[in-house]
Amino acid sequence: MDSTFFSQFIMITDIKTVIFIIALIGLLFLTSKIKSKLNFTKLMIVSTLLGIGLGIIIQYVAKFPQDPSKIAWITEVSKWYGLIGYGFMDLLKMLVVPLVFVSIIRVIMNMNEGENLSKLTSRSIIMLLGTTAIAAIIGIIVGNLLNLGVGSQVVKATEQIREISPIVDTLRGLLPSNPVKAMAEANIVAIVIFAVFIGLAIKRLNKKYSSIIKPLTDLVEAFYKVIVSVAITIIKFMPYAVIALMANTIAENGIQSIFGVVDFIIALYISVAIMFIIHLAIIWINGLNPKTYLKSASKALILGFTSRSSVGTLPVTIETLTDNVGVDSGTASFVGSLGSNMGMNGCAGIYPALMAVTIANMAGIEMNFSFYAMLVIVVTISSLGIAGIPGTATMAVSVVISGMGMGAYFPLVGGIIAIDPILDMGRTMLNVNGTMTTAITVANSLDKIDKSNIKSV
Amino acid sequence: MDSTFFSQFIMITDIKTVIFIIALIGLLFLTSKIKSKLNFTKLMIVSTLLGIGLGIIIQYVAKFPQDPSKIAWITEVSKWYGLIGYGFMDLLKMLVVPLVFVSIIRVIMNMNEGENLSKLTSRSIIMLLGTTAIAAIIGIIVGNLLNLGVGSQVVKATEQIREISPIVDTLRGLLPSNPVKAMAEANIVAIVIFAVFIGLAIKRLNKKYSSIIKPLTDLVEAFYKVIVSVAITIIKFMPYAVIALMANTIAENGIQSIFGVVDFIIALYISVAIMFIIHLAIIWINGLNPKTYLKSASKALILGFTSRSSVGTLPVTIETLTDNVGVDSGTASFVGSLGSNMGMNGCAGIYPALMAVTIANMAGIEMNFSFYAMLVIVVTISSLGIAGIPGTATMAVSVVISGMGMGAYFPLVGGIIAIDPILDMGRTMLNVNGTMTTAITVANSLDKIDKSNIKSV
Amino acid sequence: MDSTFFSQFIMITDIKTVIFIIALIGLLFLTSKIKSKLNFTKLMIVSTLLGIGLGIIIQYVAKFPQDPSKIAWITEVSKWYGLIGYGFMDLLKMLVVPLVFVSIIRVIMNMNEGENLSKLTSRSIIMLLGTTAIAAIIGIIVGNLLNLGVGSQVVKATEQIREISPIVDTLRGLLPSNPVKAMAEANIVAIVIFAVFIGLAIKRLNKKYSSIIKPLTDLVEAFYKVIVSVAITIIKFMPYAVIALMANTIAENGIQSIFGVVDFIIALYISVAIMFIIHLAIIWINGLNPKTYLKSASKALILGFTSRSSVGTLPVTIETLTDNVGVDSGTASFVGSLGSNMGMNGCAGIYPALMAVTIANMAGIEMNFSFYAMLVIVVTISSLGIAGIPGTATMAVSVVISGMGMGAYFPLVGGIIAIDPILDMGRTMLNVNGTMTTAITVANSLDKIDKSNIKSV
Repeated sequence: MDSTFFSQFIMITDIKTVIFIIALIGLLFLTSKIKSKLNFTKLMIVSTLLGIGLGIIIQYVAKFPQDPSKIAWITEVSKWYGLIGYGFMDLLKMLVVPLVFVSIIRVIMNMNEGENLSKLTSRSIIMLLGTTAIAAIIGIIVGNLLNLGVGSQVVKATEQIREISPIVDTLRGLLPSNPVKAMAEANIVAIVIFAVFIGLAIKRLNKKYSSIIKPLTDLVEAFYKVIVSVAITIIKFMPYAVIALMANTIAENGIQSIFGVVDFIIALYISVAIMFIIHLAIIWINGLNPKTYLKSASKALILGFTSRSSVGTLPVTIETLTDNVGVDSGTASFVGSLGSNMGMNGCAGIYPALMAVTIANMAGIEMNFSFYAMLVIVVTISSLGIAGIPGTATMAVSVVISGMGMGAYFPLVGGIIAIDPILDMGRTMLNVNGTMTTAITVANSLDKIDKSNIKSV
Repeated sequence: MDSTFFSQFIMITDIKTVIFIIALIGLLFLTSKIKSKLNFTKLMIVSTLLGIGLGIIIQYVAKFPQDPSKIAWITEVSKWYGLIGYGFMDLLKMLVVPLVFVSIIRVIMNMNEGENLSKLTSRSIIMLLGTTAIAAIIGIIVGNLLNLGVGSQVVKATEQIREISPIVDTLRGLLPSNPVKAMAEANIVAIVIFAVFIGLAIKRLNKKYSSIIKPLTDLVEAFYKVIVSVAITIIKFMPYAVIALMANTIAENGIQSIFGVVDFIIALYISVAIMFIIHLAIIWINGLNPKTYLKSASKALILGFTSRSSVGTLPVTIETLTDNVGVDSGTASFVGSLGSNMGMNGCAGIYPALMAVTIANMAGIEMNFSFYAMLVIVVTISSLGIAGIPGTATMAVSVVISGMGMGAYFPLVGGIIAIDPILDMGRTMLNVNGTMTTAITVANSLDKIDKSNIKSV
Repeated sequence: MDSTFFSQFIMITDIKTVIFIIALIGLLFLTSKIKSKLNFTKLMIVSTLLGIGLGIIIQYVAKFPQDPSKIAWITEVSKWYGLIGYGFMDLLKMLVVPLVFVSIIRVIMNMNEGENLSKLTSRSIIMLLGTTAIAAIIGIIVGNLLNLGVGSQVVKATEQIREISPIVDTLRGLLPSNPVKAMAEANIVAIVIFAVFIGLAIKRLNKKYSSIIKPLTDLVEAFYKVIVSVAITIIKFMPYAVIALMANTIAENGIQSIFGVVDFIIALYISVAIMFIIHLAIIWINGLNPKTYLKSASKALILGFTSRSSVGTLPVTIETLTDNVGVDSGTASFVGSLGSNMGMNGCAGIYPALMAVTIANMAGIEMNFSFYAMLVIVVTISSLGIAGIPGTATMAVSVVISGMGMGAYFPLVGGIIAIDPILDMGRTMLNVNGTMTTAITVANSLDKIDKSNIKSV
């Protein structure tokens, strides 16, 4: 009998797998020990560093391979780490559909007479798309300053690839033709729209039929309370998950293969940093201390960075905005839900802009002002309908590249896509920060933020 | 850089697209201006006429092409019009699952002691299938009088196509083995069955355990109120959507290609008209003034005609029956839900009958009384399990043609299927009217209609 | 016109089909007549015997064919019988998702302060996996005593088939990343986990915010009452369905083809019988009279036997445990839900063990103690994540065979798989009994069983 089959079945074929599983367990135990001694933010930073360290040690033991996915025991370690890291993210994602549905109904039905849903909606969308446009401009500038793609000029691919998904279809796709299906598919914008209709009807009926409607409004309040409570429980385990998530990302990616596209990585992280500073400036204009904000928001930012999922981070984003930053819970839920799906500054703003510049340079396409102007418009429009799951950024790029008529050159950037998780960390963190910046700005403009309530955690 | 890619991305490559988008916006604006001056029915008729006019102008500008789908700007205009027209239908469809689920529970749980669910069910099904059988007979007579298919005799296709979906499988498919899945797939009959079980249990428990059950019954009442309120809100936008829907259908279909199958179109609309008169006679027998009925029901009929979706029209059908015709809301929901899925007079009655006659004539199959009798039976049985979405009629035809053993000849009628939307308008309107006729008859037989309450809108 | 098409459409092409449909209707009528004269258990036994008799008569009329699926009228009869038998199972399955969801929330939220969810969970899982391990050992012993597969030694297949689904992936798959999707897919373990989180949150909030939470807890109680009431209603029709289910299984399977693998069938049923006695011993240790237990539990056991679906039987299992055996409804729901998905003694314990022994003998693989030890471990681990629908057993076998490194020899046992329904009856009954044994043991250890309440039905 061949015992390796059993080993493959339980995903432990190498002593190194066992060692690194034990190493992770050790770090988790360590974290539980120091938990009481650090505040949550510091604990999250320590976890991230522990995760990076663990990941680098794995890479070192494997002698920094070109393609770690070909090394069996790294694949196994990665599976086991993923069980902890992504298992945690699954539990967070589990809350997204009920949280969005119930909290949006609750926002709308509890709106006061004077308040205006269309103001909330329009300001949120304008802020999200506006910051995406700024992000695209920054991407274009940084990409050009660093001459991305220049020198690696290549011939045009023979076959045109141009699957343009028209914006009209994207907009239709956002409508909820069946709310249960929308929930089963976690189509968040559709859930928001359905919830808005329900919320508006409740609000309207509350004047004349409040006694008939009361069981429903009471239920919404009760269920909201319960879901938020579940979220708070799960979030407590974040520091443990972050170690596994971070170690997993580092271990799975060829540090070797980074060197070939190091200029692109640098360009992306410079752009992210610049945009991040712009966000902080916007927050400062809204009357909050950026430093205090950073401390209070770090929880969501670190989870976005390590988990690379805007939607998965959503429950944490909402909780952070509400409990730590002082944004009214309605606005937080509303902007958070939208922002995890449209106008993502990192994934749908900076990244496609950088890619377009790189490809244009590689293909020898002349870029002038009209090219740049159109690029900003295409990026901004495309950012409307991209779902916030890991991997969306690649879709955003493909839409933008097609929209700019450069579909033929898309295969050129395979090297960049190979190290995508490295880029995705920065991008997703920026998405989350963009959403929080938007929420703060909109809340401030509607006077729905209690600035005295901000607290570092 | 090739700017056409961007144009394709936003679906505007031709100045004509822009002009006709502006034209639609102009008509929508016009409609909003005349809204207050006309009652709803007149407004709907005006909208339909405006839509037809707009569609014909588009066809005129495009010089009445054989195949409009090959003209890029018509495709674009059609996408943009569809965003408004079908976007509206998506919002209506959004209500179907919750409305059916909640309203059926509500009907059953609120039934009085003396009332009988099995009577309601059996009478509804008998009326739906009975009218379908009548519709099939009318189709057979008209098809023979007009000699449909005679003269275009052809040889038999070499390969037999006979995918017979046995009626047993259809019946099994109606059962809700998972209610959440049934909701996600908008399987309406399954939702009705699940809701009936829930409703019956509530009714039974209400005697002994009414205090435990009360939170659920109260919630059903509250949610029903809310969903109906959402429906009323959305229905207000119907006149706008109808312009877009109608213009879209006219613009998308080759008026040229109609001439080849003009006899079939005439036969279908004659049959629809005759059946419609029979419906009105039934309504008259039930003690309602047909003219008043027409005025009060026109809203649902026009939406069925322009949207070509029985299920999408369902919220309007129920609202019309309840608010305008005076049918008790329970009966309206129950019959409406069933009628949008089985026994559709137009799509599953007249149309397959006409098709069968046409194909038999084309193929030189002799038709005698036993052929006709079996055709009526096959059509009626098939009409049981066809879902009421656009395109179902084609499925009904294929089931009937297979059931009659003529599967080999199905490809002959490609020309008719090409202009299907033209036929679908009349068929769907007749479906909706059949459902309303059934609801009135059943409600009248159970004394659940307030005839004094009928009103023209 | 070819009338056979119509016959195929309604699935009646042979007079024998009509006769046996009438025969079934006659038996159903007979059952309704004797219903009041027998208690439920006796009625179920009579139904099963009637079903077996009807099935054998069908086989006799068809002259005991090698492959009944090739005889048209048997296929038709089987479809019509299936409409009744499996239609009934569909209605039971309809209750699984809401019943599991609501009853688990209810268990958790109603737990007293002293009680311990982790005790309930860990004891349930230990008992389920423990009994599976015992079942595997029995399978190994019986398989070896009967020399299964010895003598039909064959050469190794040239191509290795080894799709090992790693246990890590299985564990990840159990997590509910979207509760609505989990419900739509009837992913029961995921529903349990989501419900546990909700229940824990309600329990925690009930201390401080009981007035806000009350609408939700009241609703859970109301909905639970309603679903249980629906279950009781449907269960009343069980004796009718059992006739159709049983006759269908006998009629559909080639009694001829049984003889080739008769030793395997005997081995399986001997193992099932031994394991069943062990279950009864465990029940006796828990202080219940095995004979009384058998009488009170027969309802669920017979349905498991005839329907071959652990999940479909779940509502009956829970009802039996609660109403007849005296197990607290919370424990019954919890263990029932888990037990219909993991640690299935028959499908995932005995059957794969027997199969592994057979294949090893056929392939000439030497079996020693380490082989047996590993086999027990692989079987037990695999039994964790196998969904309890008909056909799962085959999946369990394929996982175990791959895990033992014998994937190449899997095709050898085609003959056994051909008569799978014959084996599935015994296996599924044992699954259900294992679940009930576990529920009784866990309930007894937590003092959640009212032993005076057991009653024969």
